[in-house]
Amino acid sequence: MSDYPDDLRELVDAYLEGLSFSASASTAGLAEAMRYSLLAGGKRIRPVLALATARALDAEPRTYLPVAAALELIHTYSLIHDDLPAMDDDDLRRGRPTSHVKFGEDVAILAGDGLFAEAMRLFCEQPGPPERVLAALAELSAATGVGGMVGGQYVDVTEAKLDAEALRALHALKTGRLIAASVEVVCLLEGVGEPETILYRRFADELGVLFQIVDDILDVTGSDEELGKPRGSDQRHGKVTYVSLFGLGRARQLATESHAKARRALAEAAPGSDDLRLITDFIHARHA
Amino acid sequence: MSDYPDDLRELVDAYLEGLSFSASASTAGLAEAMRYSLLAGGKRIRPVLALATARALDAEPRTYLPVAAALELIHTYSLIHDDLPAMDDDDLRRGRPTSHVKFGEDVAILAGDGLFAEAMRLFCEQPGPPERVLAALAELSAATGVGGMVGGQYVDVTEAKLDAEALRALHALKTGRLIAASVEVVCLLEGVGEPETILYRRFADELGVLFQIVDDILDVTGSDEELGKPRGSDQRHGKVTYVSLFGLGRARQLATESHAKARRALAEAAPGSDDLRLITDFIHARHA
Repeated sequence: MSDYPDDLRELVDAYLEGLSFSASASTAGLAEAMRYSLLAGGKRIRPVLALATARALDAEPRTYLPVAAALELIHTYSLIHDDLPAMDDDDLRRGRPTSHVKFGEDVAILAGDGLFAEAMRLFCEQPGPPERVLAALAELSAATGVGGMVGGQYVDVTEAKLDAEALRALHALKTGRLIAASVEVVCLLEGVGEPETILYRRFADELGVLFQIVDDILDVTGSDEELGKPRGSDQRHGKVTYVSLFGLGRARQLATESHAKARRALAEAAPGSDDLRLITDFIHARHA
Repeated sequence: MSDYPDDLRELVDAYLEGLSFSASASTAGLAEAMRYSLLAGGKRIRPVLALATARALDAEPRTYLPVAAALELIHTYSLIHDDLPAMDDDDLRRGRPTSHVKFGEDVAILAGDGLFAEAMRLFCEQPGPPERVLAALAELSAATGVGGMVGGQYVDVTEAKLDAEALRALHALKTGRLIAASVEVVCLLEGVGEPETILYRRFADELGVLFQIVDDILDVTGSDEELGKPRGSDQRHGKVTYVSLFGLGRARQLATESHAKARRALAEAAPGSDDLRLITDFIHARHA
């Protein structure tokens, strides 16, 4: 697919490829496990979103590669832990054996832990005024903790019955906060004022919602190959999704509405950004 | 035991007790699991070390409670993950069921992940010049990642045969780096110059070594009650320890030598610090 900011994705991929996590022979195997999951491909939506936000703010995207990479490391760590036998117990991810299948459960847990720590380390290397880097890091930590990604995963594994409102709240935590943080940390680093940041945040929040609705649809309609794992995994895990709650037709309609809402929010935040528009359209079009 | 900076430990305990990790009902159970492990007691060696270092540098210990607490959150997260069935598979910790026994494996993994994220968030709230906070956070992340705690745990679970040098290297990563960081982050935050920081680091590194030798001895000689878990767990796990490598007598001798070395290093770094001396003596005396 060419309707995606591929130049930004290439920047991200090259940067991730160049990261080495171990300086010693005794931990080389751990670094290998971390790289195995990190370099499994994917659209790199979070880091590309960060770089596209930088460009929309007239900054040089390259400058933001450390934080962009940190976002992808954190996303990867969350996937590794989510796939564990005690969690979703998934054997395949992006068409390849999951970390614990390939390296064992102990190493998979540590690969996730290691990616998280190295993400924080990378983030500290982000050039920029220290007070802004610190504010952005605080935002990222919050998006990753109990009031964000980890909290959302907790609700996902513990709550059996969810209504529409609870489902939206779950996803706002589990995936929405990190997607929104991908935009927000760059706003914080660029020193964007509060009114403009609010517009960006509104866009990013809706993008997170759109992402999840489409993800739920794809789990039902996508091919195993597209998904990189067997179709219908949500249903097998008894998960409440937009499709299980509303049916496929209504879920598609919700996706279209969310897409329109995200586009409107983008038009207010950054009307001139082709990249952010492409990402928004891409996230929606995945369900085609 | 009163020969310990109990005033500092009380400060730490009160601060940890006051931390709440969840603002929403849906994640209250996760916060409860995090607090269960965090508030299980213990000597709080890492945070007390940080506060004692602050006092040795003529700073007000109270000021450093956010970073001190962050150190304890990270230590607690590492214990929860180390105890998991896929790792050391321990049922007891500090005399109580471990997190996965009490809350299930999925929640235990997430409690660890959540503590790590919230530690980073707390650290970002540390008052002080932002460039120093950032430098200290970079040091903490490094001490926690592949070149530190997580890397050491990886070596611990994957390497079956270790000689004395490899054992020392393992512990330098697994426990040494975080203990040393407890001193170093405060030096960085206080803006202590490089020559003095080197002296502190030398002390802290030796303290990490001493801690581990004594830990290995205690696993053989301590009562179940003192240990908070059944004695002999290292042997049952087939772990290489200072005792298995050298025998109990020689391990005790090594502890005495390490204690003397730590005291000498302390005399050069901070000759007037009663608190740091008490901590050093306490760590050694645990094996009595």
